[in-house]
Amino acid sequence: MIASSQKHWSGDVADLLRVGEGFVLADVDTRSTPGYEKDKAHAASDLEAGAAQLDEYQERLYARSRVDATDASVLLVLQAMDSAGKGGIIRHVVGSVDPQGIALSAFKKPTDEELEHDFLWRIKQRLPASGMIGVFDRSHYEDVLIGRVRQLASEQEIERRYAAINDFERQLTDSGTRVVKVMLHISPDEQKKRLMRRLNRLDKHWKYNPTDVDERELWPAYMAAYQTVFERTSTAHAPWFVVPADHKWYARLAVQNLLLEALEEINPQWPKATFDVEAEKQRLAAT
Amino acid sequence: MIASSQKHWSGDVADLLRVGEGFVLADVDTRSTPGYEKDKAHAASDLEAGAAQLDEYQERLYARSRVDATDASVLLVLQAMDSAGKGGIIRHVVGSVDPQGIALSAFKKPTDEELEHDFLWRIKQRLPASGMIGVFDRSHYEDVLIGRVRQLASEQEIERRYAAINDFERQLTDSGTRVVKVMLHISPDEQKKRLMRRLNRLDKHWKYNPTDVDERELWPAYMAAYQTVFERTSTAHAPWFVVPADHKWYARLAVQNLLLEALEEINPQWPKATFDVEAEKQRLAAT
Repeated sequence: MIASSQKHWSGDVADLLRVGEGFVLADVDTRSTPGYEKDKAHAASDLEAGAAQLDEYQERLYARSRVDATDASVLLVLQAMDSAGKGGIIRHVVGSVDPQGIALSAFKKPTDEELEHDFLWRIKQRLPASGMIGVFDRSHYEDVLIGRVRQLASEQEIERRYAAINDFERQLTDSGTRVVKVMLHISPDEQKKRLMRRLNRLDKHWKYNPTDVDERELWPAYMAAYQTVFERTSTAHAPWFVVPADHKWYARLAVQNLLLEALEEINPQWPKATFDVEAEKQRLAAT
Repeated sequence: MIASSQKHWSGDVADLLRVGEGFVLADVDTRSTPGYEKDKAHAASDLEAGAAQLDEYQERLYARSRVDATDASVLLVLQAMDSAGKGGIIRHVVGSVDPQGIALSAFKKPTDEELEHDFLWRIKQRLPASGMIGVFDRSHYEDVLIGRVRQLASEQEIERRYAAINDFERQLTDSGTRVVKVMLHISPDEQKKRLMRRLNRLDKHWKYNPTDVDERELWPAYMAAYQTVFERTSTAHAPWFVVPADHKWYARLAVQNLLLEALEEINPQWPKATFDVEAEKQRLAAT
């Protein structure tokens, strides 16, 4: 664990959550909090401290891209079953930094125009520019998740996509983008609780869709599709992280940490002035 | 003043700042705080309370657009001389709400492709979808401000643009978008101080550009261009608000209030469920 602002980790969260050889999704305890033995209150103070650090990194990253020839950027990819907390991550983790440095894209059901192109076409249009933190709320992975579960494409086409994704992400990382792929993992019971809460609150009805229940029936098929995604696309250059998410506070802290680590690796410095500072002070003073 | 969460206003900020008949920019005291007799500390607590209210309005606006046939949206247009605080507004006012409900667009020097089209072409591509709060960091007004001061277009073309802007904004408001046009107004002395601060801090050098000093020489020409903009484009459907901005805390509070008022006028309600809530509870319970 590199991020120094979050003080209460007992282990390296990235190492603990990274999908490696022999990973089995079914073995993940969605209620667990790997690397964090403290409680929600400590997590809140860590999240706040982390937000300040994230804010500074983001500004340095952005500043550098305005002045130097750099192509560094970050792309956070969020995947999850419904109600697992993507929205909360965007609001509470991403939302803590300057909106000017964030490029958020939500990928919904493809439009007719999008369907006329390769599945990566619409993705490539939303990649973060240098200096930006891109956030994908759902992504190209939908095309090998719901695409597979709902048989929206042939088996052969789904097979082709895993390799296409790896090639694409390789190009991305080669060109300076740190790719952080996160699956927020909740249990079916936790989802049931959360959906019931939506049904019980008038101000949450809009978040509920009857198809959510239909999708629940396909839970095992989705988990199998995720397992295959991890086996085929958790690469050295763009690994997956599976974040236990029954505890929202843990998921937020963990994703913030993963972002902090990506930025720590880039380690952006304030750019040097490209003008003569003393001369400019005199010019300005004379106005 | 409608926004109830900001408790310490002594007058209706929208009425006080709205550009009406006979407005003279040169008469505005950039250090004043119209309608607010309390200090920075009170403003901080008002800003926090206002942020919570803005957050709820934004979520209601967004929620309603997901369920009902509504075309309500908000567009905040920010114009200002350099260092007047647009960035701070975006960070501290806009940045306090869920990024999922914000569509931020920064308009820089037009690209070659953009220059091949009418000046409103690129603007129309970035209008907020229904349910969204759009924010323009600079806007189509650049084309009658720097466009005029730097003579980037003929006088005749500049003349044509005022009418084109009014027609365009009329269409916008007719189709459900509340347009909030804000000029953050600082004095040349305040700008000098702020630019000097940028030169004095290593972490602010990236924000400084030697052309900032050149632009300062054109201050009177810019003020004349703004005065004309106000006379020609402060309409009943899309009025301008000139916000004294030497005090950053005042400008942020005032702009937050203007946004709150726009949302209060829309008054978005939580949408009603489009499904049978009790039946869904039973379906969900059975899974």
